[in-house]
Amino acid sequence: MRYRFARQAETLGKSVYDHAPGAIMLSAGSAYPMSLPDVSHEAAEAARHKEETMQYGPLMGLDDLRDCIAAYVAEDGVTCSRENILATNGAKHATELALRVFTEAGDRIIVSAPTYMTTLQTFRNYGLNLLGVPQDVEGLDADLLETRLRTLRDNGEPLPKLLFDIPDFHNPTGITMSLERRKRLIELALEYEFVIVEDDPYRRLRFEGEPVPPIKSLDTEGIVIAVGTVSKILSPGLRVGWAIAAPEIVKRMALQKSDGGSSPFNQRIVASLMRSNKMGLHIAEVSQHMKAHRDAMIDALATALPGATVRKPEGGYFLWVELPEGMSGDALAARGVAHGVEVSPGRVCFPTAAAGNYLRLAYSFVGPDTIRDGIRRLGIAYKELL
Amino acid sequence: MRYRFARQAETLGKSVYDHAPGAIMLSAGSAYPMSLPDVSHEAAEAARHKEETMQYGPLMGLDDLRDCIAAYVAEDGVTCSRENILATNGAKHATELALRVFTEAGDRIIVSAPTYMTTLQTFRNYGLNLLGVPQDVEGLDADLLETRLRTLRDNGEPLPKLLFDIPDFHNPTGITMSLERRKRLIELALEYEFVIVEDDPYRRLRFEGEPVPPIKSLDTEGIVIAVGTVSKILSPGLRVGWAIAAPEIVKRMALQKSDGGSSPFNQRIVASLMRSNKMGLHIAEVSQHMKAHRDAMIDALATALPGATVRKPEGGYFLWVELPEGMSGDALAARGVAHGVEVSPGRVCFPTAAAGNYLRLAYSFVGPDTIRDGIRRLGIAYKELL
Repeated sequence: MRYRFARQAETLGKSVYDHAPGAIMLSAGSAYPMSLPDVSHEAAEAARHKEETMQYGPLMGLDDLRDCIAAYVAEDGVTCSRENILATNGAKHATELALRVFTEAGDRIIVSAPTYMTTLQTFRNYGLNLLGVPQDVEGLDADLLETRLRTLRDNGEPLPKLLFDIPDFHNPTGITMSLERRKRLIELALEYEFVIVEDDPYRRLRFEGEPVPPIKSLDTEGIVIAVGTVSKILSPGLRVGWAIAAPEIVKRMALQKSDGGSSPFNQRIVASLMRSNKMGLHIAEVSQHMKAHRDAMIDALATALPGATVRKPEGGYFLWVELPEGMSGDALAARGVAHGVEVSPGRVCFPTAAAGNYLRLAYSFVGPDTIRDGIRRLGIAYKELL
Repeated sequence: MRYRFARQAETLGKSVYDHAPGAIMLSAGSAYPMSLPDVSHEAAEAARHKEETMQYGPLMGLDDLRDCIAAYVAEDGVTCSRENILATNGAKHATELALRVFTEAGDRIIVSAPTYMTTLQTFRNYGLNLLGVPQDVEGLDADLLETRLRTLRDNGEPLPKLLFDIPDFHNPTGITMSLERRKRLIELALEYEFVIVEDDPYRRLRFEGEPVPPIKSLDTEGIVIAVGTVSKILSPGLRVGWAIAAPEIVKRMALQKSDGGSSPFNQRIVASLMRSNKMGLHIAEVSQHMKAHRDAMIDALATALPGATVRKPEGGYFLWVELPEGMSGDALAARGVAHGVEVSPGRVCFPTAAAGNYLRLAYSFVGPDTIRDGIRRLGIAYKELL
C-alpha cells in the first residue's frame, strides 16, 4: 500500500525511544527503579472514589490536584491559584499544548542549542523554524539572543512566537540559569512579544548550591508558561504534569487537548501523594540517589575518558561531556553500544548546526556500580577512537 | 497582556465540556455512575508492579495490553497482532495521531454530517477542510460521496486524505452502517487513496439485532485505521484507547505522541480487566443499563415531544431527535437549561452547513427516573416553543 503521509510523518527514522537491547542504559532520563514510590495505598483509595476517578475528568484537571500544584510551586515563590493551572499528561504534553496555542507551522521559536532532544522532535513534528541560541555558564546567551532578535526586526522578518528553555539543571547541559539572565529573558519577551515556556522537571533535585527563583516567579505580566511534572520527583508512569499561566492561556491550551481531561485516576493518586508528606520524603530520597549517581559517573569519567571535559551540575539527571576536538560523539556512541553501553550523541540535542564532539549521559536509571561499569565500557570505546 | 495567539486558538468560545450547573445532563456521553467498575484490586496489583507501571512505558504501549486488544478485536473478526496496535490516551487521541500522520492544515477530510462534536473540535483545531456527507439509514451516503470525489478529481482539486466515521451506533445519529456500505467505503478509499479512520467505541453495547463486521475486518489492503477505547465499556477515567493499522502507520502515529508512552499504570489495569472475565461481565451489565435508559428516554419523548421524530438505535449512547421543521434546536436547548435539563443542539454536530432542527440526547449518564424527569422538563420547553 502506498500511503500519502503528511510531511511531518514521511520519514520513519530512529526514535529517541529506541534502545540498544542488553546495553547499560546511560542514554535516557528514566527513573531509578530502586526509588520508584509504592502507591498501592493511594491507587486503591483512588479506585474507591470511582465516581471521580473512573469517569471523565474535568477538562482543566481535578480542582484538588490544581490546588496541590499551586501550593507546591508557592514554595518556589510562584504565586498562582487553581484557575492558572491546567493538568496535562506530563510536561511534554504541556509544551505541545503551548505550541498549539501560540504557533503555526513555519513559525519561529527560540530554543537553547543544545536543548531537550525529545521536545526537539515535537518542534520538528510541528514544522517550526528553530532559532537556536547557545548557552554559557549562566544559561542562554541573552546578548546574542537580543542581537538576533534585533536583526530579525530590522530586516522585517517574522519574530519568534515562543521561547522554550529548561533553566534549572538544563537538559542536556546541566546548567542552571542565573537570576540576571532570567530577568533579561523576561525583558526580551516583553519587548519582542514572545511567550516563555519554562520547562522545570528537575528543580527539586538539587544536590548542592542555592536555588535560583523560577522565571515564572519573576513574571508580573503573564508572559511565562511554567511547565512541571511529577515524572522526575515521583513517577514517569503516572503521566501527570501541568502548565501554569494566565487563565486565557491555560483555557486555550485545554481546548487543544484531544483527550478531554487527563486521567482523573492518576491525578487523584498524585494529589494524595502531594497532600501527604510522602512526596517530600520521596524527593529527598531521589535527590540523595541522584547525587551518588552523579558523583560515581564523574569519578569514573575522569579515569575512563581522559581529555574529555565534564561540567558538574548541581542537580538533575544529566552530564554533558565535551570530547576532544575532532572526536565524533556519534562514532563514540556507536562504538559504546558494541561494548555494551548506550549513551546519546550530543548531536541529537542541537536544533540546527550540531557540534559533533559532545555526549549526553544520563545517570538517573542505573545505580553507581552499573554506572561505573558503563563508563568503563565507554572508556574502552573512547580509547579505540583516540 | 496582548498575546499573539495562533489562528487555531484565537477564539475562546463555549466548550463542549462546559455544562449547565444543576441541570439534568442529557448532553454528554459520560459513563453511568452506577455501573463504573471497581478496580481496587487491579489498581493495587498495578502499583505492586512498579518497575513496569511507575516507569516510562514503551512508546507503542505494553505488549500485554496490545495482545489483549488483539484478542478482543479478534472476536469481531479483526485479525491483527501486537505490531499493528498502538496504545493511546483514549480514542480521540488515536484519531488526533492519525490526523497528524496523514494531514496538514488546509487538507481535506471526509466526515459524516452530522458527526461526533468533540472530534469536530479537533478537526477545526487542525485547520482541516471538512467535506461533510449525509447519512441515510444504511450510514454514510456512499453514492453522494463518490459523486463529490469524482467532481473534485475532475476539477483537479486536492482529494481528501482521510475519512472519519463511527459505523456502529453512530454519534450522534445512532445509525449502524450496512455491510454493503462498509464495502463501498473501502472501494472508494482504495480508488481515491484516502485512509479510513473507523472510530468504534460503542460496538459492544448492542441491545438487539445482529452485529455487522467492522470495516477493519474487511480491509485486506491496510487502508483502515481502527480506533477503539475502554471509555464506554469500562471507564473513561482511565484514558486507555488504541489504534489498529499497518505497522508503518502505527509506528508513525507513535512518533507524533508528545508524551512518550501512555501511562503504563492505566494500561496494566486495563490489561488485567481484559484478561479476567471482569470486562466481559461489565460490558453485559452496561449494555443492560443502556437498553433500559434508551427505552425510558424513547418512551418519555413520545409523550413530551409530540411531532418530533426519533430513530431507535440498536445500541450505543445517543438519540438523534428531529424537531418539527422550523423549530430551532438551539432555542430548545437554551430553554431546556432554563427548565433544568441540558441537551445538545444538533447544530454543533455538523461540519459545515448545519440543519437547525435537531437535538442530540445522551441517555448514558443518568438513570431511567432522571431521564424521564429530564425529558418531561424538555417537554415543557418544547411546548413553549411550539
